[in-house]
Amino acid sequence: MIEILDIPVRGQGLHPITDRLAPLLARAGADEGLCTLFIRHTSASLLIQENYDDSARVDLENWLNRLVPENDPLYSHTLEGPDDMPAHIKAALTATQLSIPYRDRALLLGTWQGVYLWEHRHHAGARQVVAHLP
Amino acid sequence: MIEILDIPVRGQGLHPITDRLAPLLARAGADEGLCTLFIRHTSASLLIQENYDDSARVDLENWLNRLVPENDPLYSHTLEGPDDMPAHIKAALTATQLSIPYRDRALLLGTWQGVYLWEHRHHAGARQVVAHLP
Amino acid sequence: MIEILDIPVRGQGLHPITDRLAPLLARAGADEGLCTLFIRHTSASLLIQENYDDSARVDLENWLNRLVPENDPLYSHTLEGPDDMPAHIKAALTATQLSIPYRDRALLLGTWQGVYLWEHRHHAGARQVVAHLP
Repeated sequence: MIEILDIPVRGQGLHPITDRLAPLLARAGADEGLCTLFIRHTSASLLIQENYDDSARVDLENWLNRLVPENDPLYSHTLEGPDDMPAHIKAALTATQLSIPYRDRALLLGTWQGVYLWEHRHHAGARQVVAHLP
Repeated sequence: MIEILDIPVRGQGLHPITDRLAPLLARAGADEGLCTLFIRHTSASLLIQENYDDSARVDLENWLNRLVPENDPLYSHTLEGPDDMPAHIKAALTATQLSIPYRDRALLLGTWQGVYLWEHRHHAGARQVVAHLP
Repeated sequence: MIEILDIPVRGQGLHPITDRLAPLLARAGADEGLCTLFIRHTSASLLIQENYDDSARVDLENWLNRLVPENDPLYSHTLEGPDDMPAHIKAALTATQLSIPYRDRALLLGTWQGVYLWEHRHHAGARQVVAHLP
């Protein structure tokens, strides 16, 4: 089973998508298997991260923004704005794809793990994530 | 087939787990396929890395510790100790999941590749890795 | 179906491999499924990145070379040359494996996404990528 999810984003940062996956598991062709997510963009990523404490996510975003700042004189790819090249670099350093095993139609995430779409650009809009299940 | 492996860790660093995978391949439902590993934590990762020379692993750990130091004034998420927020950042920069093709019940790793659990915190204990095979 | 692709590399940088995947999809056992790529090396990676504008790829390479420079006094693993330890670190920060869903025997990549082998060493030669499809 392959479905394409449209994920609304409000701007740069982590957007939780764990809740979007339960309906897919309910319709999957097997009670257990592998749920693969693939993001169809080069300026956003997928991330498994702490789902409990907001401060961990804030620090993570601030840290990556400091490592990959906007307006770095190294960049030549600047036509699409100051957040474009940092977004490509952040995407290269993080995951484009995640495969998560599931059993009894529930993802085998750890207690504190959530699934996030990490938007690296400032715009609001929607991103596409392909989900593959058996 | 889904199994949950308990991996003992002695503290921060790379812990080889390649040998833990052979018994799973022996019990898999097919002679060839895909072995997917998923770590159920947000402060440890999975890594394929050089299995021959210890110095490469030491340098890798030292380099990442320098890139993501403890006690960075940027961090607000500090309640769980100075190694907690760096561990989340390191986990975001490395892999939570790996899928490795296998044939004749042997992983198709390169000659110098080993599979490691990379513990980012200082404590000793155990980590859970979910393995999915056909 | 498992096949091992030999990918020629001219030296450090991104080498497009998207076109190498179409013949595999044509021979796969199912019209839709998951195409998994796994690189059998610890000094090269797989990457999904912008396929349109060369400047984005140039900036990405230059940025990573600045983050992980050669001849860093931190390195003790230096016997194989100044590009060896940086290559291992770059491989740890990027992907060893990618799984891409496909439908109607076409990868469900986004409009601007291409698949690349990222060679981190300076030599020319060949790299092996294992492809797994249903």
